[in-house]
Amino acid sequence: MAATVSNKRVTLRRYVTGFLSEDDMEVVMAEAPPLDMPVGSKAVVVKNLYVSCDPYMRNRMTRHELPSYIPDFVPGEVLENFGVMKVISSGHLDFKAGDLVWGITGWEEYTVINNPESLFMINHPELPLSYYTGMPGLTAYAGFFDVSKPKKGEYVFISAASGAVGQIVGQLAKIKGCYVVGSVGSDEKVNLLKTKFGFDDAFNYKKELDLKTTLRRCFPKGIDIYFENVGGTMLDAVLPNMGLGGRITACGMISQYNLERSEGVRNLYYIVIKRLRMEGFHVFNYYDRYYQFEEEMTRYLKEGKVAYVEDIVDGLDAAPAALIGLFTGRNVGKQLVAITQE
Amino acid sequence: MAATVSNKRVTLRRYVTGFLSEDDMEVVMAEAPPLDMPVGSKAVVVKNLYVSCDPYMRNRMTRHELPSYIPDFVPGEVLENFGVMKVISSGHLDFKAGDLVWGITGWEEYTVINNPESLFMINHPELPLSYYTGMPGLTAYAGFFDVSKPKKGEYVFISAASGAVGQIVGQLAKIKGCYVVGSVGSDEKVNLLKTKFGFDDAFNYKKELDLKTTLRRCFPKGIDIYFENVGGTMLDAVLPNMGLGGRITACGMISQYNLERSEGVRNLYYIVIKRLRMEGFHVFNYYDRYYQFEEEMTRYLKEGKVAYVEDIVDGLDAAPAALIGLFTGRNVGKQLVAITQE
Repeated sequence: MAATVSNKRVTLRRYVTGFLSEDDMEVVMAEAPPLDMPVGSKAVVVKNLYVSCDPYMRNRMTRHELPSYIPDFVPGEVLENFGVMKVISSGHLDFKAGDLVWGITGWEEYTVINNPESLFMINHPELPLSYYTGMPGLTAYAGFFDVSKPKKGEYVFISAASGAVGQIVGQLAKIKGCYVVGSVGSDEKVNLLKTKFGFDDAFNYKKELDLKTTLRRCFPKGIDIYFENVGGTMLDAVLPNMGLGGRITACGMISQYNLERSEGVRNLYYIVIKRLRMEGFHVFNYYDRYYQFEEEMTRYLKEGKVAYVEDIVDGLDAAPAALIGLFTGRNVGKQLVAITQE
Repeated sequence: MAATVSNKRVTLRRYVTGFLSEDDMEVVMAEAPPLDMPVGSKAVVVKNLYVSCDPYMRNRMTRHELPSYIPDFVPGEVLENFGVMKVISSGHLDFKAGDLVWGITGWEEYTVINNPESLFMINHPELPLSYYTGMPGLTAYAGFFDVSKPKKGEYVFISAASGAVGQIVGQLAKIKGCYVVGSVGSDEKVNLLKTKFGFDDAFNYKKELDLKTTLRRCFPKGIDIYFENVGGTMLDAVLPNMGLGGRITACGMISQYNLERSEGVRNLYYIVIKRLRMEGFHVFNYYDRYYQFEEEMTRYLKEGKVAYVEDIVDGLDAAPAALIGLFTGRNVGKQLVAITQE
């Protein structure tokens, strides 16, 4: 049977410079791997149910001169990212057919995972499974609590605030008792932040003439925590508006990923003047926090304290456009690809 | 007697934009304050022996829109900075005539200090008194140990490395067992770093064609700690050369202070990629470390483990040019003004 099963997949066609286009990726039909995994092989075969579209994937499509924290994608090979999967066959004692797991997988129908220790078991299948493309949730949780180190009553600013990470950071900040403002790229998203996610204030950065002035109006006492998702011009406007001893948690800088030459940030001297801490982090270093995060978030979701807006496209054919849409702000909330209707 | 004593002083003539010039300051003769301080006034009158020239003074000469951590200088009023002083008369129980102290004072011959609690007693007058214009020493000590948090064997890069702060950071890093490279603006200073201060390597940034390549050559395994004194182009070259989890201690950004528009820094995304921590600090927040620093540094100085190069000009008339010289790299080591030959 195994030899006749096909495996649709999305590959990288070439290394990317400048703005990502659909033509940089290719949807191809390949042969599926053997769907029976011999006992003792320590690998598992999974059927991919959902995969996540995340901005950092763009970075992996550039050929880097110096090694990055995560390898560049290779032209001709399948893309990979976080996904939710069902185990089809397992050669590993900790997994059995039918288990629902999440972790890094391919943008394809079937994937052999040789290091299933890297996968997380899904302990709460009563929640929508798409929630478990989990990286953005844990990114938000670890980035906000472990890196930003918030205190009750602090003033928090979040850019790309309706995105997968931003929407959760904002709601965690409200739960923590902070005052929260977000920036987004449309009035629809401003509305989403204020009504659905309970932000105290929000603005559409595309409509503001002078971001520095906008931020001064939103934060007359200064920003204690800036959760940085965009970089460039926004970071430059934020720096003079930071409060003394403020923290900038650098999660990503999406505005820069498609630029051949990044925008220059000129106001870095405020890091000295206001003795700021700017710190980058990777969710990979916080996996030990996952099960605590899962219990806490599941409780918040069940209690209705946290909402989560997803944007799900159907099928791998739609995946390249969905990924590109992240950089034009087309998506509303977390962008996912549903690979199979199961 | 008091009314007839004159008091030479250096004042700010106007708020400064662009490159600082001698014409922005003025040396004037004023009348000295009464040199007898009534008991119970809680103030002291001091004679200023040395004052320090430090780059951050330039920043205080700009009129700031938003309040900074320290007030702007006011045109017509005397400049102030760290200095070494002898108490002439005291109305405060903790001080008596003849005491040697250091702290913030005026660029003038006599100063009334209304909050002498802000002064530090000089406990080791056997060391050259000029050492006690102490801010750079404590800045180096607190910045390196408390902010950079060095570990033995780490790779440390210091810009403006022969300057008042840089020269001490480098030597503390050697004492800590780190590998230390410094950048400076002349071959004479390269030589100073290697021979006098014991740096492992050093380069003249003015002679390097591509700082990013130079740094990669000096740090093939990446930089663990960058002690940042200059900003701009150097920071941009450092960012891709940082090692994973590296720290950038932002002490100052002297290359930017005379620019009307700062240079743009384009490589900030490495803060995310390499999960760097970039942190600004002020020595003012580390005064509680002073007496520990003094004991430790005095021991190092006596044991010959730390050298200290000073550049002393004579008299307040020479002070404006000495301050400007910091920004052209004219000084070799710590820049001081000796006000009186006492």
